[in-house]
Amino acid sequence: MKQKLFALLERDYEEMIDIRRYLHQNPELSFQEIKTAAYIVNFYKQLGIEVKSGVGGNGVVAKIKGEKPGKTVALRADFDALPIQEETNLPYKSLFPGVMHACGHDGHTATLLILGKVLHELRTELEGEYVLIHQHAEELAPGGAIEMIKDGCLEGVDVIYGTHLWASLPYGAIHYRTGPIMAAADRFEVVIKGYGGHGAQPHKTKDAIVIGSQLVINLQQIVSRRVDPIESAVLTIGGFVADNAFNVIADSAKIWGTVRSFNEDVRDLLEEEIGRITKGTCIAADCDFDLKYERGYPAVVNHRDETEFLARCAKEIPENTEIQIANPDMTGEDFAYYLQHVKGTFFFTGAMPENVEKPYPHHHPKFDINEKSMLAAAKTLGLAALKSQD
Amino acid sequence: MKQKLFALLERDYEEMIDIRRYLHQNPELSFQEIKTAAYIVNFYKQLGIEVKSGVGGNGVVAKIKGEKPGKTVALRADFDALPIQEETNLPYKSLFPGVMHACGHDGHTATLLILGKVLHELRTELEGEYVLIHQHAEELAPGGAIEMIKDGCLEGVDVIYGTHLWASLPYGAIHYRTGPIMAAADRFEVVIKGYGGHGAQPHKTKDAIVIGSQLVINLQQIVSRRVDPIESAVLTIGGFVADNAFNVIADSAKIWGTVRSFNEDVRDLLEEEIGRITKGTCIAADCDFDLKYERGYPAVVNHRDETEFLARCAKEIPENTEIQIANPDMTGEDFAYYLQHVKGTFFFTGAMPENVEKPYPHHHPKFDINEKSMLAAAKTLGLAALKSQD
Amino acid sequence: MKQKLFALLERDYEEMIDIRRYLHQNPELSFQEIKTAAYIVNFYKQLGIEVKSGVGGNGVVAKIKGEKPGKTVALRADFDALPIQEETNLPYKSLFPGVMHACGHDGHTATLLILGKVLHELRTELEGEYVLIHQHAEELAPGGAIEMIKDGCLEGVDVIYGTHLWASLPYGAIHYRTGPIMAAADRFEVVIKGYGGHGAQPHKTKDAIVIGSQLVINLQQIVSRRVDPIESAVLTIGGFVADNAFNVIADSAKIWGTVRSFNEDVRDLLEEEIGRITKGTCIAADCDFDLKYERGYPAVVNHRDETEFLARCAKEIPENTEIQIANPDMTGEDFAYYLQHVKGTFFFTGAMPENVEKPYPHHHPKFDINEKSMLAAAKTLGLAALKSQD
Amino acid sequence: MKQKLFALLERDYEEMIDIRRYLHQNPELSFQEIKTAAYIVNFYKQLGIEVKSGVGGNGVVAKIKGEKPGKTVALRADFDALPIQEETNLPYKSLFPGVMHACGHDGHTATLLILGKVLHELRTELEGEYVLIHQHAEELAPGGAIEMIKDGCLEGVDVIYGTHLWASLPYGAIHYRTGPIMAAADRFEVVIKGYGGHGAQPHKTKDAIVIGSQLVINLQQIVSRRVDPIESAVLTIGGFVADNAFNVIADSAKIWGTVRSFNEDVRDLLEEEIGRITKGTCIAADCDFDLKYERGYPAVVNHRDETEFLARCAKEIPENTEIQIANPDMTGEDFAYYLQHVKGTFFFTGAMPENVEKPYPHHHPKFDINEKSMLAAAKTLGLAALKSQD
Repeated sequence: MKQKLFALLERDYEEMIDIRRYLHQNPELSFQEIKTAAYIVNFYKQLGIEVKSGVGGNGVVAKIKGEKPGKTVALRADFDALPIQEETNLPYKSLFPGVMHACGHDGHTATLLILGKVLHELRTELEGEYVLIHQHAEELAPGGAIEMIKDGCLEGVDVIYGTHLWASLPYGAIHYRTGPIMAAADRFEVVIKGYGGHGAQPHKTKDAIVIGSQLVINLQQIVSRRVDPIESAVLTIGGFVADNAFNVIADSAKIWGTVRSFNEDVRDLLEEEIGRITKGTCIAADCDFDLKYERGYPAVVNHRDETEFLARCAKEIPENTEIQIANPDMTGEDFAYYLQHVKGTFFFTGAMPENVEKPYPHHHPKFDINEKSMLAAAKTLGLAALKSQD
Repeated sequence: MKQKLFALLERDYEEMIDIRRYLHQNPELSFQEIKTAAYIVNFYKQLGIEVKSGVGGNGVVAKIKGEKPGKTVALRADFDALPIQEETNLPYKSLFPGVMHACGHDGHTATLLILGKVLHELRTELEGEYVLIHQHAEELAPGGAIEMIKDGCLEGVDVIYGTHLWASLPYGAIHYRTGPIMAAADRFEVVIKGYGGHGAQPHKTKDAIVIGSQLVINLQQIVSRRVDPIESAVLTIGGFVADNAFNVIADSAKIWGTVRSFNEDVRDLLEEEIGRITKGTCIAADCDFDLKYERGYPAVVNHRDETEFLARCAKEIPENTEIQIANPDMTGEDFAYYLQHVKGTFFFTGAMPENVEKPYPHHHPKFDINEKSMLAAAKTLGLAALKSQD
Repeated sequence: MKQKLFALLERDYEEMIDIRRYLHQNPELSFQEIKTAAYIVNFYKQLGIEVKSGVGGNGVVAKIKGEKPGKTVALRADFDALPIQEETNLPYKSLFPGVMHACGHDGHTATLLILGKVLHELRTELEGEYVLIHQHAEELAPGGAIEMIKDGCLEGVDVIYGTHLWASLPYGAIHYRTGPIMAAADRFEVVIKGYGGHGAQPHKTKDAIVIGSQLVINLQQIVSRRVDPIESAVLTIGGFVADNAFNVIADSAKIWGTVRSFNEDVRDLLEEEIGRITKGTCIAADCDFDLKYERGYPAVVNHRDETEFLARCAKEIPENTEIQIANPDMTGEDFAYYLQHVKGTFFFTGAMPENVEKPYPHHHPKFDINEKSMLAAAKTLGLAALKSQD
Repeated sequence: MKQKLFALLERDYEEMIDIRRYLHQNPELSFQEIKTAAYIVNFYKQLGIEVKSGVGGNGVVAKIKGEKPGKTVALRADFDALPIQEETNLPYKSLFPGVMHACGHDGHTATLLILGKVLHELRTELEGEYVLIHQHAEELAPGGAIEMIKDGCLEGVDVIYGTHLWASLPYGAIHYRTGPIMAAADRFEVVIKGYGGHGAQPHKTKDAIVIGSQLVINLQQIVSRRVDPIESAVLTIGGFVADNAFNVIADSAKIWGTVRSFNEDVRDLLEEEIGRITKGTCIAADCDFDLKYERGYPAVVNHRDETEFLARCAKEIPENTEIQIANPDMTGEDFAYYLQHVKGTFFFTGAMPENVEKPYPHHHPKFDINEKSMLAAAKTLGLAALKSQD
């Protein structure tokens, strides 16, 4: 069965590439993926595969039932693009100015479509059921996953797998990790409401720049002193703006940034401490403030058994030449939500373009992938799906 | 003679008002005071007073020689306006959008013109010589004084007097002070040259916002610890700008501000310490920086004997009902330069509008003066000039 | 009369020296000056001068009534010593280990005793009354002045004069100043009540050293930003102690210091801001604290007319070769309290030892004075006392 | 063979307890363990086991050769005690005031001695060779391991195992971990060399308390900004002392602390950044400093294969009811050095006393262990040793 699966995927590899390139030329922004969703639906319909659109928004869910009883396995691919002006010279470069598949979601979708096609062909021999979750809006909080789940995409699902084609890892890499693999990513904004005045008369003011600077410095102590050193946390101030004439004391200062963590308790602590320190700093300065803290995606926390299982499956595929434990990555992913509902795992598939000294990072205008990574991903996901029945 | 002086000034008080209002309607920005200079020249020429234009730029100097030998006394009035859109409802409101006499220089000029006219009338009875310095460009560094001095306006001058109509003091006030009365006002700008990156990867960056905040905090120690507590000093950060997306670590941050002092040693110390602390802070952060420190006007430092003499003169004028030692003011004035070359003093003449609970500050779009203060100023300057011959 | 006064003082200069040296050998600590007080009482009694002991503690007050009516003039000298081990080689070095007249109070007392003796001799020719206030306990808050005043030493007094022999000014100097001449000197102590723990587990603690350091830095902003730059203020942290093993996180940290100001509003502001900033800093750190703020002596604020009068008197004495306006000094003196009740002035009399490149500062184990300064002080105080009757 | 091993260990469990209690009563400080070493030597000699004393100091090494060829397996136990006054009520409480086995090394030694005895009994059936390393001076850097290794204790050794009886884990726990399990623990000390003076004259000083506080705050940025958030690091200031009178400005301040890390690159970074930040902070303050940084033990970094092997062995022992991946602990251990030379692993054996709500931590005067943990440790180490031959 494994050999059949691999052979069929190899047979359709050219089609996979065609699909990916078509999608690459026709990117759509998060929550606006109308044509992409229709393309996916049409693909499955033409093959006679059961498919449902409009799941939790623009989401699409296809189902393939094996003829034998078994578990229900979900596989997920996201399909939105980014507000980036593509700067590559690819023949299949984006046709839409300012919109680009710069994160590999085109590849994710092509991978899953062909895998679905192949599973459908094999359906008479298959046990269990296969739920193909094509998710919209991964790039933009609150993301598509949360609504697709609410709309039932995980109903009856026993286990879920997903991967990200990862351009900073070489082709052949499968990096997996039990526990947190991608971070919770929150954002916050503070407005220091001081009291402005003439630069020569500080005693008549509450100097928002000094207060804001004090806050930036005080906030450093959260990571250095209040978070368990075994845990990971990042608190970055991205912006500090108080733009006045040189001889004016600032009436207000605006400060904003991002907060990353893998552990929900650490995340709660970070939010609580930002609040506490901002409050204390402003009390010391006798001034007011506005603080907004917005939670983004939670951390992607992989389940142990499913992760170790996935790693074992990966080893059965010759293309996977570098299978190892991943370093957790402090970026975010709304795959996190699926893992809060069902068992499963999310892993990185090496997709670094060939003959490149240093690949362009994800979200870069010149981002590209090695398309062979799609076949590796399809085999790994497909094998894990089939073997989940064992 | 004193009584004659006062009587003539009172006789021409209406003309003084007319002149001031004409100038108020026709303000010109610093270094662009072509018509104002021409007006002044014309005024003196029509009276047959010796006048020289183009002194150190747009400056005008008139001279009145008494028939008896004596000292040479200079009196100074500045005549430039500000880039402010007037918001008063005065009938003689500025005719030029965005330009306004919001600091009383119109009043200074009217005061000196009429005083010149009166001294000219009295010339046969006068000892010594009177140099009427009409200075352009007081509001904008490097100012007009420095060039007028280079161009010889102080040649042969024994003593100089000047006043500022001061809207925060009540009509009737003459505030004088030996030593520093107005501050040296410098400016500086620092660009922190960090190394930017992704908000989740602080270890790959040099976070310019944290470094900049550290600098702002460190700079506080100059005034708190390094300046003699008996001396006055202000170091204000007017601007702090590092404007990035919330999940980006700042590559650079720009910080700028003003520095005020009365004592040249303190001023040198402030500049030196800003340099030292910026350097040390950046060494600690392993980053580069650009620091520009620009000296503005030095402090206005009045000479003791001339100041005490002025105070005694002021007491002989009935209008001056509140003669006292001034609090030094941390704003600047390029009258400072004259006092570096000749003896003299600069004082404040109360000019608060009547029936006003809280006057608008200088440089405010609704700034106004009590015109009676011009007569008080003319009498005080005039009497000091005459009595300087004693 | 002036010449008589001066002649008699010169006649008794040797006795003045003997008295001073006797006192220098027999110093007593603040509030323990039993023998010194008895010595003073005995001196006056032997001369038949009215004297009262036990005034507000160890204080002594002698009174000399002129035979003509007039004003009541008080003169004050303090007589306590310091807990310092003398390190001079003077033949009249302190006989008491660990106690030393290291601030010139021995000289103050000798000066006033001889001046009292001379005024007593002149009493038949004198107008008014002379109150000689020998004050105990100037060196140790709350000081002796406050209790002597409560005990009536200023009753009927019209004006008071006092001087400090000042070793950093050359012999011949009289430095006077209207308004504040010596500072209010307060003290405070903060205990940061964190929560200690193992050095490798910061997240289980509230790190008192980091919180305390934060507080020290935050407190700098009081002087740099919250005090009017025209005013003087000092906030010094004298001690910071958290003494733990290298791998322990501090449970508490103790921080203490001194606060100096000339203006009562500034003083109130300093106390208020220390409280506010300590509170805010501890709120930010989620910890408790104890803050004690103890007011010491207020600023010595001289009255204008009496100060200018004193300066004029000083000019009539040939020894006074350098009469000028004093720089205010940020040290304290409880002469301050007398000036809150009656008019008067306090001034510095130059007492630098001869042939010394750099004199030892007050309170130094090798402190010494030029004894000739006592005669200059006696003449200046005496003349001011007599001329106060004019 | 496994069953024989377990049976013999159970047979000698009472003796193990007796040994442990004897050692507990007779603790000796690090580098002073003369009697303890002699006790160990004697134990082995009486059994006819080859033993060598004086290895790298007070270290003792016994060797048991199986009659069949095989690998050489080292097992290590440390035997020094701590300078702590015991506060337990145990009948076998320390007989030596101020010295206590408060870290379980008595238990480690008893465990290895009995395990040695049992292996010796089984020697005819054993493959390979067993090196029993009894190490002195684990508690005090530079520790005993480094010298024992230099003295050859690892010669010929193929693999090494060690455990720590761990009172915060329940009896039954075996916590293992590939990679870093205990931290590198370094220490540092900074003396800020400011320039002292009177509390009222900050401008004449370089205030060591403010500079030191600045340094404490600046150092926070190392962990918050300069260490990869995926890595663990701790920088704790344990002491800050500048102990002066309230009205004195500190001439110097002494600051010291500990630094923990798991990764040598992070360790290098921490040392480098402490140096950089101290230098920059002192340049900003124009002062000197002394900085000492002393490296303690490196991190204990377990080898993967040996760790996974150990975990599999542990599962074969019924007592081990909670076998799981350990959280890395930020305390240190000089077992680290052995793992730099040979393969192996170090693990925690749960030793929490029974019927205790919250156990006293290691190094506490009331520290105690559950003696049953010794048997679990002996079985785990013993089985791992035997199975290493497979």
